[in-house]
Amino acid sequence: MVGAGGIMGSYLSDAFEKDNEVIRIDRSKVDITSPSSIENMYKSIGAFDALVCTAGPSYVGPWKKLTDKEFRQGVEGKMMGQINLVLIGQHYINPNGSFTLISGALTHEPQKNFANATAANAAVDGFVRAAAIELQNGIRINSVSPTVIENSPQYFPFFPGEIPVTMKQLEYGFRKSIFGANTGQVIRP
Amino acid sequence: MVGAGGIMGSYLSDAFEKDNEVIRIDRSKVDITSPSSIENMYKSIGAFDALVCTAGPSYVGPWKKLTDKEFRQGVEGKMMGQINLVLIGQHYINPNGSFTLISGALTHEPQKNFANATAANAAVDGFVRAAAIELQNGIRINSVSPTVIENSPQYFPFFPGEIPVTMKQLEYGFRKSIFGANTGQVIRP
Repeated sequence: MVGAGGIMGSYLSDAFEKDNEVIRIDRSKVDITSPSSIENMYKSIGAFDALVCTAGPSYVGPWKKLTDKEFRQGVEGKMMGQINLVLIGQHYINPNGSFTLISGALTHEPQKNFANATAANAAVDGFVRAAAIELQNGIRINSVSPTVIENSPQYFPFFPGEIPVTMKQLEYGFRKSIFGANTGQVIRP
Repeated sequence: MVGAGGIMGSYLSDAFEKDNEVIRIDRSKVDITSPSSIENMYKSIGAFDALVCTAGPSYVGPWKKLTDKEFRQGVEGKMMGQINLVLIGQHYINPNGSFTLISGALTHEPQKNFANATAANAAVDGFVRAAAIELQNGIRINSVSPTVIENSPQYFPFFPGEIPVTMKQLEYGFRKSIFGANTGQVIRP
């Protein structure tokens, strides 16, 4: 579980730990913006069945301050960070394993201040569809795309009209990807 | 017309030149992977009504050779190149002007060897939706998302089952964005 220190990652780790072994990875253990840090993480873990990522930094703020520099937060973090977790992780994951990445409803339901996340989410969802037809050995890949989540009320004002996703709904979205048989899907919990 | 040296850009320039002034920009005049080169381009052009981009470099090749390094071709080219054309160009474009970017059907219809383009296309389409609700002064933005195009037969073998888009269909897709009233749309010609 990459992002295990965050609101989603800690909840999901607790939930899945009841029936599975969960390796909690927070930002003290990997810098997802660095391919070599990702490679070192996989080397230290060894073989595994499922990679779940809930880490997705991006720039949130006024459009007027959005330049190439701010945009890189989401490009290097939520987008390339997660894409590299897959490109590198495919060489370590067990056959019939799965990758589950985090994107978000902003992909198709944009809100002001979140253009960077919208583009990064969309890239992740697209990558998932493309990777699903390339990955070998029965390895699957999906993304989970929630709107604003129940345990992040500080974001509610930025998502007018969006009914928050409960943590239980979020958990079930990830369950569908990890324990189901689907691949190349964008799961909306 | 950024990308005027390419197959799409030269066709579209010829078509639109009949009734409009077209400034043809090819890669000798701008490097879209460089924000400062983009800034210089806009400075030399001055005010304009429509920015059309058909330039979208990305990595095409076997998944097995796809690492962070190859992926950067599409990230810096088709994705951030076009996003920076908008983030910078919004300060130069006339009120009620329009941006039209190029993406592609690979976003939702992946093909082997094109994961980089799929992710870049998806990011561009997402950005278009987000930018449409942020741009001021009546400025519009859309993307045109063709499948393989008529005048690029060398790509046909990579797109089994895709009926090539004719150059006329492509032109009309761009017409819809440039001369229509829609914004935030992914136009499938």
